[in-house]
Formats: sequence, structure tokens, C-alpha cells
Amino acid sequence: MGKNLTPRNEDYSKWYNELVVQADLAENSAVRGCMVIKPYGYAIWEKMQAQLDKRFKETGHQNAYFPLFVPKSLFEAEEKNAEGFAKECAVVTHYRLKTDENNPGKLIVDPEAKLEEELVVRPTSEAIIWNTYKGWIQSYRDLPLLINQWANVVRWEMRTRLFLRTAEFLWQEGHTAHATREEALAETEQMNNIYAEFVENFMAIPVIKGAKTESERFAGAVETYCIEALMQDGKALQAGTSHFLGQNFAEAFDVKFTSKEGKQEYVWASSWGVSTRLMGALIMTHSDDKGLVLPPNLAPIQVVIVPIYRNDEQFNAISEEAKLLTEELRAVGISVKFDGRDTHKPGWKFAQYELQGVPLRIAIGPKDLEN
Amino acid sequence: MGKNLTPRNEDYSKWYNELVVQADLAENSAVRGCMVIKPYGYAIWEKMQAQLDKRFKETGHQNAYFPLFVPKSLFEAEEKNAEGFAKECAVVTHYRLKTDENNPGKLIVDPEAKLEEELVVRPTSEAIIWNTYKGWIQSYRDLPLLINQWANVVRWEMRTRLFLRTAEFLWQEGHTAHATREEALAETEQMNNIYAEFVENFMAIPVIKGAKTESERFAGAVETYCIEALMQDGKALQAGTSHFLGQNFAEAFDVKFTSKEGKQEYVWASSWGVSTRLMGALIMTHSDDKGLVLPPNLAPIQVVIVPIYRNDEQFNAISEEAKLLTEELRAVGISVKFDGRDTHKPGWKFAQYELQGVPLRIAIGPKDLEN
Repeated sequence: MGKNLTPRNEDYSKWYNELVVQADLAENSAVRGCMVIKPYGYAIWEKMQAQLDKRFKETGHQNAYFPLFVPKSLFEAEEKNAEGFAKECAVVTHYRLKTDENNPGKLIVDPEAKLEEELVVRPTSEAIIWNTYKGWIQSYRDLPLLINQWANVVRWEMRTRLFLRTAEFLWQEGHTAHATREEALAETEQMNNIYAEFVENFMAIPVIKGAKTESERFAGAVETYCIEALMQDGKALQAGTSHFLGQNFAEAFDVKFTSKEGKQEYVWASSWGVSTRLMGALIMTHSDDKGLVLPPNLAPIQVVIVPIYRNDEQFNAISEEAKLLTEELRAVGISVKFDGRDTHKPGWKFAQYELQGVPLRIAIGPKDLEN
Repeated sequence: MGKNLTPRNEDYSKWYNELVVQADLAENSAVRGCMVIKPYGYAIWEKMQAQLDKRFKETGHQNAYFPLFVPKSLFEAEEKNAEGFAKECAVVTHYRLKTDENNPGKLIVDPEAKLEEELVVRPTSEAIIWNTYKGWIQSYRDLPLLINQWANVVRWEMRTRLFLRTAEFLWQEGHTAHATREEALAETEQMNNIYAEFVENFMAIPVIKGAKTESERFAGAVETYCIEALMQDGKALQAGTSHFLGQNFAEAFDVKFTSKEGKQEYVWASSWGVSTRLMGALIMTHSDDKGLVLPPNLAPIQVVIVPIYRNDEQFNAISEEAKLLTEELRAVGISVKFDGRDTHKPGWKFAQYELQGVPLRIAIGPKDLEN
């Protein structure tokens, strides 16, 4: 790689930033506070997604997709939620650009294309979703409604850090509706438990489950459960949250149902989410001064094979052997890369794969073939 | 369902709109031109995604994620592309809301939080991606770069229709970089062929491959290949496009590489995409006046079992039998739903599942158990 990581005990924060970039996970983009998730980092996120999605579906949830934009009038309907997010909202005010007549080849916002009502880029989707649920829920027969969405959200943060706090991030947000307080509370707890189980067993990160204090609660929630993970620098990182929303959003959006007894009642709600911030937790839990350390579960490349050779004949013989080994490993579901590039030396390759956290790095040389 | 579909020969367009809503695939949202994709519709899209993603990865592509926003100065860099999309751009101009002092509980856009440079919500990502590729490509060793992104995009359309033309839609966009014109052209053709193969073999929709005329080409492309499918109303529907971008974006973003011969050259490019519009193609190709017709490949529920009974004893015996059948079918990878609800009659259920295109609908009554 030619570069060295700053040791953790020298500057933990600097080590983190360097590692994310050098291991090819993500980088800052031309858009303030927004990151580019590079293929190697995205492949890890995809593995997390697949596992979480499986757990959501096994517990009866279905995926759906709701609009990116929230009209301002809907956004402000649940007052505490609106107040909590108002300061971080990216706002769409116009729907057209036009040629700048004073500046050929340049564009300006067309003042005639001003929206009658501004649109907030979703910082979270309770408002748009509960406004939709109003049309979906009439009777107790329509409940529970158990829905999840994989999406991007935007929160205009002033101080950003790759994966940990970015203006745009990827996440899943579950939004459920229930007939009773008890059911909604049970769902809230169930999802926090699923997060804990996933993070502990699949990501190998120990977490502590708990409830947030009033000041730390999600804006609009009655109770916020969370999982917190301990990082190497002694700080706790919030790794997932699950909110019991009471009847706050049902009241704000007038979502009532007819109970079995024929009474009109407000619906009870939960929402819960984890995000690409989990990538940050992963990095800060396992990695060391030499680079990323990935649990094999999450490694995009689980085994890399590097040939050590002096001539074409040796290279060809090693390639043959590597091919057999690759086939054997792939047959049992292990991902393997053979790095036969002649543009880099073995030493460079080993350093790179150590930096990128490939769990098993195999060197094959002419002597290995003799055995 | 209580509703009837308008027959196709009476009003094809009306039939389509009613079917999308009644089959629970999608609905219009509170945001002008944006749709909500409901769980049943989203489950079909997920099946398409999984298949396409597999094909992309098998041909060497990797997924990544780039920012939702494109700074205006980057957006306008490739002039033809900018000109082509300028009239449909949602533009973020502010990053904060604040309390409206004259109107308690309401919010207004904070005039002090105006962005120095406006951000365009991506209508397509060539600009932001090629600006990023500039940092990734130095040498011929960095090529080809084969990347795909699953994302939402926004094009402010004046006349929208569910799935076919919506202001926000979901899609995948491939963006590749190559050392030679020939390679980029071959990639462009390969991806159009993959789209054709997928749509024909997996979605059972015949398509015609072709190239767009100059006026219909993607803004900024040298050549646009496409697949067009014939709908029941005799109209062709564009189902996927693959663009040969020449060196247009490399020139606009100054992306050069050192060739094997040590020369500095501009990189060659392709981009290609299919979107949730494929849902529209699916509906309009196969469905009829009774409802959705889904190829079993794409059906979220492949088999539904409806019990016909007069008393609890019969219901229990049928449920036992249905459970065995369900286990047998699931063991071979077939998705099965048992609809034992006592809130709806069998006739209602059959009409609903026909409307929703469940390929196999099984009734089990007491006499069936005797056989």
C-alpha cells in the first residue's frame, strides 16, 4: 500500500479515518458530508442487509417503498418529531433549472419553477408513512401492519465522519401498527432483541441493551430502546434503536381503527432502524494497527491465494493448483480470490489483504506443489 | 374485492391504473408524482432485483453507492447531459427549517440556511460518478471499472403514471470505464443483451433489441441501445437502455489514464439501467380483465390454499392436510399461503387471488380429504 496507518494509541480517530479510506471501504464525495461507499465496503453492507432482511421476514415483516420527499405540511404534523429534525432538513424548493443567459453553458435555478409547498428530503419516514397508513387501516383485521423499508435518508449534520455520521446514509426503517399498547411494546422489544442478536452473533460485536433517557429519545417516541457497543477507545456507540411511538403518530395523522368491540380507537406504533453506521461499529470493534479485521461471515473475500513464482512455468503450475483449491472452497460456499496479477509483488499483496481484512491469506510457491 | 376492473377493450389505460391499485401493487402518495410501492408489488420488484443482480455479478460487476445529491457545478459539466435533464430537476436550496413565529406549530424554510451551491437530486448519476472516477483511475491497470448502483432517482415529470412514469423511481444504473472504444461498446452491447435475456426468459416478455435515433438518445450518449416490449394496446414500451458514452464524460470530468504505452488517454464509458417501469411492462404484457397474471418465477405467492368448510371440525382437518401440503411444497422452494381467515368467504378469496395473479389456487373441502 505504501502507506502506514497511524497507530490507534496515537490518534484513534485518525486511525479510523485512514483505515476506512486505505481499506477501500468508503471516501468523502464532492457533496458536503455525503460519502461514496466503495465496492469493497458495499459488499460488507450487502451481507449485513441480507441477514437483517432474513430476520425481518422470518418475524412476519414485509418490505415496501415510500417516497423520498415529505411535503412540509405532513412533516410538521407530529410536532415533536418535526421539532427534533427541523434543523437538519435538506429542502427541495424548485423543480427545474434553466440556462443562465449571462453565463453560457451554466445553469441557474428557474425562479418560475418554485414549488407551492416545499418538500423535505426524508430524515426518517414516520410522517409520510403514517399519512399513508391512514388509507390502509380501517379495522382490527388490518392489524398488525408490519412493514420495513430499505432506503437512503438525509440529515444535515455539521460535523460528519465516514459511516458514523454522514449527511446521507443508508438504513432500514421498520414501521409497524398495532391494535394494542402491549402488542406495540412487544414489537419494539422484539426488534431491539433482533438487532442485539444480529450484532452479537453475526457481527461478533458485544452490545448492551437499554432504554434512552428522555433527552436522548427519538423525537416523537414514548420510549426508545437501543443497543450500544463498546469501541476500542472506551466510548459507547449507538448501534441500533427501536422506538415505542405510543399513539403519537396515529393522533397526528388521525389513524383510527374499528376494534372487535366496534369502537373507534387510535392505532399504536413502533419504528426501528439500523444504518451504515454499523460499518463504523464493525471497524472500530475488531480492527487493529495493521488494518481491518473482519469476521469471516462478513468478509467479501474470505480466502485469497497469492502465487509465489520466478517464471511462467511455475506460475502456470501454481495457477492450476489454485484453481483446484478455489473450486473445492467455492463448492462449500467460501468466497475465494486468486490474485495472479504480475503488476504487484507478493509482499505488496499480503500487506494489502491484511489491510483489507481478508481472513485467510494463502501463499503457494513451487515447494508447496512438491508436497 | 367488491370492485370490477374496467375491461381492457373499453379503456386500456383505465384498466391498467385500476389493476395496479386493486391488486395492491402501488398507489399514488401525498407527494405529487411519487408512488408508494406496496408490499405485494415490492415483493415482485425484489425478485427482479435478485435476478438482475446475479447476472451483473456473474459478468464481473460490483455494487457501490454514490451520493443522492449532485452539486450544480458538477451537474452542468457535461453540457448535453445537463441540458437534457435540467427541466426535470428537483433542487435542494436550503438545509434547515425553523419555527414560523407568526404561526405556532408550523415550520418555514430558514432563509439563513441557504446553500452556497444548490444541489440537484440525481436524475441519473453520470456526473457525480465520473467526478469520483477521476480519483480512482490513473493507469490502464485500474480498468475496466465495472460498477452498478441500486438507487432512487428523481425526474420531475409533469404527467405521471404508476410504475411507468413517476417523479421518483427505483432503478439500477451501471457505470463502467474502459481503456478502449471497442471494450466500452462491447460492454454496452453485453448489458443490453443481458436485459433482453432477463426480460424474455425470466419475465416472459418478448422484446426487440435496437438502437435509438439521435433525438431519442440518452442526453450525453454517443449511442443508446434499448429493448422495447410490445404491450397489449399495440404500443411499444421501452424496458431497458444501455448507453455508449464515448469519451464525453471523461472529457467533461477530465478522467485520463496512462496506457500500456505510457500515453495519457481519455477513458471510454458506458451506462445502463432498468427501473421499476419493468413492473409496468410485466402488468401490461400478461394480465387480463380478471386481474394480474404473473409468471410463477415472479409471483410472491405461488400457491394459495383456501379451505372450504362448515364447522370447526372440518376446518381443523383441512388445516392439517394443508399444513402437510405446504411443507411438501416449501421443501421444493415453492411459496405457499394458507388463507384460513374466517373474516372472508371462499368466493371473495378466490376473486382476490385471481386479481392478484397467484398462479395456483387450491380449494380443499371435506370431500377432498376423503380421497
